[in-house]
Amino acid sequence: MIIDIKDLYKDITKYMDKDVKVQGWIRNHRKQKEFGFIDFFDGTFFKHLQIVYDNKLESFEEIQKYHVGSAIEVTGHVIESPKENQDFEVQAKEIKLLGNCPEDYPIQPKKHSREFLREQAYLRPRTPLFQAVFRVRSVAAYAIHKYFQDRDYIYFHAPIITSSDCEGAGEMFHVTSFDLLDIPKIDGEVDYSKDMFASPSSLTVSGQLEAESFALAYKRTYTFGPTFRAENSNTRVHANEFWMIEPEIAFCDLEGDMEIMEDMLKYVVKYVLDNLKYEMEFLDKFVENGLIQKLKKLIDSKFTRITHHDAIEILQKAPVKWEFEPKQGEDIAKEHEKYITEYFDGPVFITDWPKDIKAFYMKLNDDNETVAAVDLEVPGAGEIMGGSQREEDYDKLVKRMDELEMDKTTLDWYINLRKFGGCIHSGFGMGFERLLIYLTGVENIRDVIPYPRTPGNCDF
Amino acid sequence: MIIDIKDLYKDITKYMDKDVKVQGWIRNHRKQKEFGFIDFFDGTFFKHLQIVYDNKLESFEEIQKYHVGSAIEVTGHVIESPKENQDFEVQAKEIKLLGNCPEDYPIQPKKHSREFLREQAYLRPRTPLFQAVFRVRSVAAYAIHKYFQDRDYIYFHAPIITSSDCEGAGEMFHVTSFDLLDIPKIDGEVDYSKDMFASPSSLTVSGQLEAESFALAYKRTYTFGPTFRAENSNTRVHANEFWMIEPEIAFCDLEGDMEIMEDMLKYVVKYVLDNLKYEMEFLDKFVENGLIQKLKKLIDSKFTRITHHDAIEILQKAPVKWEFEPKQGEDIAKEHEKYITEYFDGPVFITDWPKDIKAFYMKLNDDNETVAAVDLEVPGAGEIMGGSQREEDYDKLVKRMDELEMDKTTLDWYINLRKFGGCIHSGFGMGFERLLIYLTGVENIRDVIPYPRTPGNCDF
Repeated sequence: MIIDIKDLYKDITKYMDKDVKVQGWIRNHRKQKEFGFIDFFDGTFFKHLQIVYDNKLESFEEIQKYHVGSAIEVTGHVIESPKENQDFEVQAKEIKLLGNCPEDYPIQPKKHSREFLREQAYLRPRTPLFQAVFRVRSVAAYAIHKYFQDRDYIYFHAPIITSSDCEGAGEMFHVTSFDLLDIPKIDGEVDYSKDMFASPSSLTVSGQLEAESFALAYKRTYTFGPTFRAENSNTRVHANEFWMIEPEIAFCDLEGDMEIMEDMLKYVVKYVLDNLKYEMEFLDKFVENGLIQKLKKLIDSKFTRITHHDAIEILQKAPVKWEFEPKQGEDIAKEHEKYITEYFDGPVFITDWPKDIKAFYMKLNDDNETVAAVDLEVPGAGEIMGGSQREEDYDKLVKRMDELEMDKTTLDWYINLRKFGGCIHSGFGMGFERLLIYLTGVENIRDVIPYPRTPGNCDF
Repeated sequence: MIIDIKDLYKDITKYMDKDVKVQGWIRNHRKQKEFGFIDFFDGTFFKHLQIVYDNKLESFEEIQKYHVGSAIEVTGHVIESPKENQDFEVQAKEIKLLGNCPEDYPIQPKKHSREFLREQAYLRPRTPLFQAVFRVRSVAAYAIHKYFQDRDYIYFHAPIITSSDCEGAGEMFHVTSFDLLDIPKIDGEVDYSKDMFASPSSLTVSGQLEAESFALAYKRTYTFGPTFRAENSNTRVHANEFWMIEPEIAFCDLEGDMEIMEDMLKYVVKYVLDNLKYEMEFLDKFVENGLIQKLKKLIDSKFTRITHHDAIEILQKAPVKWEFEPKQGEDIAKEHEKYITEYFDGPVFITDWPKDIKAFYMKLNDDNETVAAVDLEVPGAGEIMGGSQREEDYDKLVKRMDELEMDKTTLDWYINLRKFGGCIHSGFGMGFERLLIYLTGVENIRDVIPYPRTPGNCDF
């Protein structure tokens, strides 16, 4: 029977001094005159398995020709390893070549630059760094599902193609089945009646608005799906396609919202630390020194809660020469975020933001100037989540949309949610890749997405 | 403290004869002179909670005015119910209106047609039918994640925007940041160099090709994400946007693939039956009589395996007057699928299909005529999954792509997977909505997607 490397590491006593058969790939191959050593991986466990073979094998000379990257099947005997930092290895009885690999295989057992590996995106999950990163991605995604499902949230698939613009930012990709060389027109405008949906349609920037309709039916719901921005920014933290988690909770105010944000984040961080020991040790050692300590500290910390007004006051009193002067009524810059988390030595919820720099759907506070919005600032990551209590008052919502000169026709249903048994409700959004950057220490969003989409890049 | 209705149903002994507070909505309101009865739901449990109030309450007259659909908060005493089919109810001490609802609320406690409810898509999750359907959707999605994660599959987010056309069918939506009224042109062609990705880009029809690269790094992987078809078909089973699950496994042949398909399907069906008793009973009673029995039978059955060739022979010998005559080398029609599952009285894997009616990436069998492909036919659902062993031979793959006159430039990386340690690997795809139609008995795909996208419909 073929086993996984993971099986060996899970319970070696079951296999010690026994024969096993494994299938996987050669990560490194060190050849000596009478021996050979293969660092063998099969993708099921972060640590590789050492295969030892010697010239007593009939095919010894053949095996020595196997290049790094080749797929092989090894039958052998599990023995204790003479190496100090290794508990066991496999003494090969037979090594079969399953899939050859040429000598010019791009992934060699040496340090490759991340830029180079981005060009080899279809091969980079075979390197230790990306094995770790994309397993963190998978396990963190599952932790998020588990957190919400264990707490009776309904997983809601928000529509990807949409006619509503949640953020009103207009930075949306068009979706069309038209031949771009032959767009039907009528009276100088695009004749959308001839397009697939008979209306202009775009890729969603957020599933929140639709999620609210589920919160008002199920009490608790969450989305976890792709979202898009047609933004031409080439930064380390922007991609045109990314995944978002957007929970939405009925009968929940901003305070309750923050409790969930804090609890969820700690849960996911802990889940990853508990389940991916070797991956996290590797990332701590080679990507961000102190990573594990940073994450453990987050789990143990109590998140501070402070209003935007008070945060600005702290910033204004700070003995710091700012690039951007902190001002009441205005947004908070990266340098400010950093100072605030250092000031409180931990994560900080900044609440009650000036309404003019926040979205139309956020609940207007009694001061008529601020909204019940919150950003979570985390040391070493900046803003990692944002949420708000939603405006549940029909008249106030309509008034705000009118002030912003928004088109209400495609959002009539959203407004009507306030008419038909509307209630206090809140939610938040977390960019999944932001979380992964924080969890892995990898600083470029292109390195936490298997096949990133950024301006000029839609390869693979 | 506010509790969920779910808490009461989970362990009523904890709450019996005690005071509780709940928040939710009025599903039905029956008023009598001295009493009132409210069918109350909060979305956390399928069964509603009965609230009883009487004219000893100061606000009795006010409460009697609350319409169906209103959001309320009820404080009351949990008592045993005098009603026969109900274990407990809440005797209200106070009922507060949290959110009003007008009398013309579209969702009334009566039978609404599904067509009508589609127009009210943002309200329909509040009806028992859609409460059930979308909870099945959520729980089935989680079951799928749990199945694969428990078995060390890596969850892979395939890119949504893509430059490759997996199926070669060409039915893809264009994605662009161009102003559709002003498409830049060069030499009579679209000047894609000016578009966001500097290349033509589309919405993915499948994440399989990219998933293969993860299988060849992690051994086991699966996708679970949205896929798209720009197909103008108005049928009960087609939507332009739907979710797919696409597992991919290295060192796995078609036989192994079928084992996973069978095991996974049974697991998910069982998980839903075990966890959603009341939802499934409701669906069995009001949507598809015999639903639960059908699903239980699937779990207990051994799936038959038969080649396409043998299936055609059975069909040709069948004492049936076909609309489409079954022929060797040709596809199998709906009526044939139905006959085959009835013939074997259970699910049937049909394998080894004529290569000309299957995709380019499927492994060519030794006969040079058929490919190692499989469709799973399930009684009452038809084809519910399709899979194949992938062509791992570099030369054969290139030859097949050339025969089909495919453009190899955007798929060079995919072909190269066969060069760099390629190995036998297999996978399959399951349309999530197909599964949900099977699980719920609801026959129209528009009723298992929260906000369906179909030709002419991109509302919400």
